[in-house]
Amino acid sequence: MYSSLVQYVAYRTLPRAHLQFESSSERDYHAFMEQITVDGQRFSISRAARDDVEVLVGLLADDILGSTRETADLDTYFEAFTDIDADPNQFLAVIRDADKEVCGTFQLTLIPGLARGGAKRLQIEAVRLGPSTRGKGLGSAIFTWAHEWGRSHGAALAQLTSDKQRRDAHRFYDSLGYLATHEGYKLAL
Amino acid sequence: MYSSLVQYVAYRTLPRAHLQFESSSERDYHAFMEQITVDGQRFSISRAARDDVEVLVGLLADDILGSTRETADLDTYFEAFTDIDADPNQFLAVIRDADKEVCGTFQLTLIPGLARGGAKRLQIEAVRLGPSTRGKGLGSAIFTWAHEWGRSHGAALAQLTSDKQRRDAHRFYDSLGYLATHEGYKLAL
Repeated sequence: MYSSLVQYVAYRTLPRAHLQFESSSERDYHAFMEQITVDGQRFSISRAARDDVEVLVGLLADDILGSTRETADLDTYFEAFTDIDADPNQFLAVIRDADKEVCGTFQLTLIPGLARGGAKRLQIEAVRLGPSTRGKGLGSAIFTWAHEWGRSHGAALAQLTSDKQRRDAHRFYDSLGYLATHEGYKLAL
Repeated sequence: MYSSLVQYVAYRTLPRAHLQFESSSERDYHAFMEQITVDGQRFSISRAARDDVEVLVGLLADDILGSTRETADLDTYFEAFTDIDADPNQFLAVIRDADKEVCGTFQLTLIPGLARGGAKRLQIEAVRLGPSTRGKGLGSAIFTWAHEWGRSHGAALAQLTSDKQRRDAHRFYDSLGYLATHEGYKLAL
């Protein structure tokens, strides 16, 4: 229902064959970038680079729940980024607007598994859109893009958890067809 | 509160240094095995091998929800196993009793991320214990073991989702200290 809002523009710095993440030694995928157009406005989605970490942490902290959670030293985030960046099953995304300002982020994880007929899962974590982008259909476009990225990497199931306090987010996920079939449990280790 | 039920027995086929999963080319981790003793009964936890796939699928299917989900061809599960086995951030576990019969399984996934102070997550999926093992404290022992495995690999947060129909499982996760703070959403791709 949202696909009419989204146009995938042929704007890639590498041919498609380089975007298959076939092995961790294939490092060309760092140049990944795609553009989407949402209701006439252009945004780009690219794989996060080390230089993006500080602004991404700022986005995570600019949030009712994140403001109390994102208090670690920046070096800690750089260490985490190193792990994300080394793992070909992770896609940490940076969303930029037409002025190249960072306005959003999300993280995709591919999880192979035996359950559900050997279904590979696309897990979506840490979705944040800056306040200036909200209500423009960008969220729907991002999820349409993420689902397509998952399918192209063999995923048969998308999954995410959302804090029970985020009522607006739940209406959004409902509108995308997600079903809140599960309880989401967390435990600090 | 459950740690008194669990003894970690020094029974490893490799020295500890080989169990750090430092790179995907370090293949010795396949020999991973540990033993736990629960209320006087011995169980082993080992990394699943290709030969275990059929019996693990049987365990997944022997379940009120799994019986309708696990209908794929066995080749599909072998393909999924190949992906799991190639990924050093996955640990697909086989639990065997003292007679070396497979009696349980679970899957651990390490997910690096920026959110929550750059916390690495330990995700727990597809936990199944055969009917003969239930009510003996094995579940608690398995989770104690899994959490320790996560900590030793740098995880600061454990997370799992559980179908809202699994009321008994929810009481169990509550007893372990898990908090059902999140809605768990799924979408078929």
